[in-house]
Amino acid sequence: MRIGILGGTGPAGSGLAARLASIGHDVVIGSRSKYRAMETVDDLVGKWPQLAERLTAGDNAGAAECELIVMATPWDSAAGTAQENGDALAGKVVVSMANALVRVNKKFQPLVPPRGSVAAHVQAAVPRSRIVAAFHHLPATELGHIDEPIDSDVLICGDDPAAVLTVSAIVDDIPGCRPLDAGELSNATAIEAFTAVLLQLNVRYKTRVAPKLTGIKRDPRVVSPSE
Amino acid sequence: MRIGILGGTGPAGSGLAARLASIGHDVVIGSRSKYRAMETVDDLVGKWPQLAERLTAGDNAGAAECELIVMATPWDSAAGTAQENGDALAGKVVVSMANALVRVNKKFQPLVPPRGSVAAHVQAAVPRSRIVAAFHHLPATELGHIDEPIDSDVLICGDDPAAVLTVSAIVDDIPGCRPLDAGELSNATAIEAFTAVLLQLNVRYKTRVAPKLTGIKRDPRVVSPSE
Repeated sequence: MRIGILGGTGPAGSGLAARLASIGHDVVIGSRSKYRAMETVDDLVGKWPQLAERLTAGDNAGAAECELIVMATPWDSAAGTAQENGDALAGKVVVSMANALVRVNKKFQPLVPPRGSVAAHVQAAVPRSRIVAAFHHLPATELGHIDEPIDSDVLICGDDPAAVLTVSAIVDDIPGCRPLDAGELSNATAIEAFTAVLLQLNVRYKTRVAPKLTGIKRDPRVVSPSE
Repeated sequence: MRIGILGGTGPAGSGLAARLASIGHDVVIGSRSKYRAMETVDDLVGKWPQLAERLTAGDNAGAAECELIVMATPWDSAAGTAQENGDALAGKVVVSMANALVRVNKKFQPLVPPRGSVAAHVQAAVPRSRIVAAFHHLPATELGHIDEPIDSDVLICGDDPAAVLTVSAIVDDIPGCRPLDAGELSNATAIEAFTAVLLQLNVRYKTRVAPKLTGIKRDPRVVSPSE
């Protein structure tokens, strides 16, 4: 699939770009400055030459022309950047992965963004798009280490079941990741806020945590939408 | 340790009472009605006769005399019940385990309670007590199945490190549970809200999920406070 990552030059966006390219997607890394995007692509291809044919640099408008879109800007730019590209994004699956966090005394605290979550804010900004919230809890560094699997569940929520299935199928192709259907987009509030707890655990235990949920057997309805 | 559970007749409170008794604690199940508490104790002892010598029924004021307190009332009674017993609770470790959730169209949605979390609301109601938030994500039914271990991490947060250590040591004695230090009490907001996502997964996958975090090695500073 051709995937555009708006604001794809930060750690999470570029890590996800590398990971998605590594599983066979064509990824356009978008940025406000296409030159920053070119620099990010150069860095990634420098590390993993095999990704060269899968990664392209562009501005955000160019990335927005892709089939599926990921919003990877800082959380407070996500809704605005989506809105600026609203026509290109109409009808498409748009993945929101940002968390509204603020650092207070070296600790991360979740904020309540407009509409209750970054994902809901983006959905309000581009009502013709099909917003899916995903990838909030994956550590950015590990996301970009494409030679290693990521041992994590990925909570996915959204109001459009077909869009959730599309994103679930992508997640299921990432080695070690299990997509989980976490219900409607309103659950993004709690999923985003919980990232603050995971970051706190990272600091406390000097590690990178990833969440797993016990008690769930694989559900073919989620991971194989084509069946 | 002698542990009092205020509002201990509901599923979470009685399940926790049975579990704590099963690992050797003396537990007083408190309730607004001591007769309801007696009924709960009878039910539990009927199922597990070996807990008879560990479980006592009382009213909330009686349970509040114990060494360590658990608030297991419905979330909207937690702060009020704590405040009514404020003198008895002064100086003590008080565990907040409730989640502020509301059911909308068969789905659970988190609410923002006064002060941002149930735990913070309780802390404000009993400022002389040492509030620790814990046990939010454990499924109540499995908590009460004392013959089975619970395969789950337990996120514990609070502003008093010694109080967090005390609760961590109790959690560490529950077979299958791993206590994790999740930072200050402000993290209770996200931990409580995340319960709505877990309940959603329970419905979606017809199971009872419990969270585990990959990437953390056991930390002796958390699990062995006496060292």
